[in-house]
Amino acid sequence: MKEKLFIIKIGGNVIDNDAALQSFLKDFAAIKGKKILIHGGGKIATKIGDKLGVESKYINGRRITDDDTIDIVTMVYGGLVNKKVVAQLQSIDCNAIGLTGADANIIPATKRPVKDVDFGWVGDVEAKQIPANNLKLFLENNIVPVLAPLTHDGAGHILNTNADTIASSIAVALSTHFDTRLIYCFEKKGVLENVEDENSVITLIDKPKYAQLLEENKLFAGILPKIDNAFAAIDAGVKEVLIGDAQDLLQNTTDNTSGTLIK
Amino acid sequence: MKEKLFIIKIGGNVIDNDAALQSFLKDFAAIKGKKILIHGGGKIATKIGDKLGVESKYINGRRITDDDTIDIVTMVYGGLVNKKVVAQLQSIDCNAIGLTGADANIIPATKRPVKDVDFGWVGDVEAKQIPANNLKLFLENNIVPVLAPLTHDGAGHILNTNADTIASSIAVALSTHFDTRLIYCFEKKGVLENVEDENSVITLIDKPKYAQLLEENKLFAGILPKIDNAFAAIDAGVKEVLIGDAQDLLQNTTDNTSGTLIK
Repeated sequence: MKEKLFIIKIGGNVIDNDAALQSFLKDFAAIKGKKILIHGGGKIATKIGDKLGVESKYINGRRITDDDTIDIVTMVYGGLVNKKVVAQLQSIDCNAIGLTGADANIIPATKRPVKDVDFGWVGDVEAKQIPANNLKLFLENNIVPVLAPLTHDGAGHILNTNADTIASSIAVALSTHFDTRLIYCFEKKGVLENVEDENSVITLIDKPKYAQLLEENKLFAGILPKIDNAFAAIDAGVKEVLIGDAQDLLQNTTDNTSGTLIK
Repeated sequence: MKEKLFIIKIGGNVIDNDAALQSFLKDFAAIKGKKILIHGGGKIATKIGDKLGVESKYINGRRITDDDTIDIVTMVYGGLVNKKVVAQLQSIDCNAIGLTGADANIIPATKRPVKDVDFGWVGDVEAKQIPANNLKLFLENNIVPVLAPLTHDGAGHILNTNADTIASSIAVALSTHFDTRLIYCFEKKGVLENVEDENSVITLIDKPKYAQLLEENKLFAGILPKIDNAFAAIDAGVKEVLIGDAQDLLQNTTDNTSGTLIK
């Protein structure tokens, strides 16, 4: 039997709140066994960009990563946020190492081709291009990778990459070596049957259930990419995916009694 | 016989100049065998601090690292500069990993005690507190550490630390495992007999020669801490120290025909 590996992604709602972050990191450090943390950027990159006079640019609601923006996200995600998390984990007996995809070439990516829109320095990753042994070296030596949502093109450039996608891609890439469990922490307690009601968490979504939910048109549109991502990861070898509140999920990693389990 | 390990420190004159940096990294990547790069911060941290409205503060000519300043150096040294260097090295077949002292706990430090002056978030390092095995893991796996001048206090805080000191401390700490050669790259061709004359490089300084030079009062005052640092490293086990121009030194690592050799 393969060893269990938790791959946990946190978003801006945890990163932007010092108390929430500290509490999350305590729960994360307490998880026994192998684990990887992937963090998003939070609002601080936009705040620092504004102060530096770099405007956030969007085309059709999608962010463009131009020359100035890639410098800012490299500083903020790869420097400020990543090292703050690492230093805090080190102080609570978790031997963390902060990495971007360029470091030790753990996540090579491809700059998104320019079609109708030039997204700029954005990297698309594919699980099969990830050299799993590079990340495995850290896990085998009980070092806990903390990943910023940045990759590289192999030609000298850092690329901005969606943190959810990084999480699912490495979960898939490492699934041949480990029994990988992907945990998406977000601001809700799970996938909700009724988005207005925090107590309407759907505890299990399998494919028939998902088809039924889609037909009933009940789900909040924003959650659909996360669920699609989760099923894609499972089809590619990930054992299970959990979606929900950071604290609930991390304090119950052994019995999966919280959040929405996708199988 | 122990394996050779080059520990190479570059300063702002290389970091601040894209062409010089690119040329340096090409030479660095070409060095055969084990190597570690330590980079300073350059002027970009001050420039970004100015734009963000964070004033550089000095007491008696020495920089103070307050709360805002440590965030800026963490962003710029640990994020922007470090990841730019790593991505460029990855593109020229050098499997670099960018690290601060917090990452994998490679360089624990002590926050400088407040006496007459409160230097803020500044870290003092001692070679004997550096767990050499943590850095050794990377070297053994042919991963090339690229270190930002940042350490941590083990209590959750990143600390600002002089890059020259980091270089000499890790050279000492690793000298039990490797035949360590410390190379300080700076803006001159070496230690100059006459600071006005770039051709007056002193090719070898041993202790009697240094005593003589000090007596004759010939040396530029700014170079003295570097030489003292070098002798301290040699006394503690480092094989030799070279001081000089990046390009000269790196293109001649086998025969030591450039710069000033301190033995």
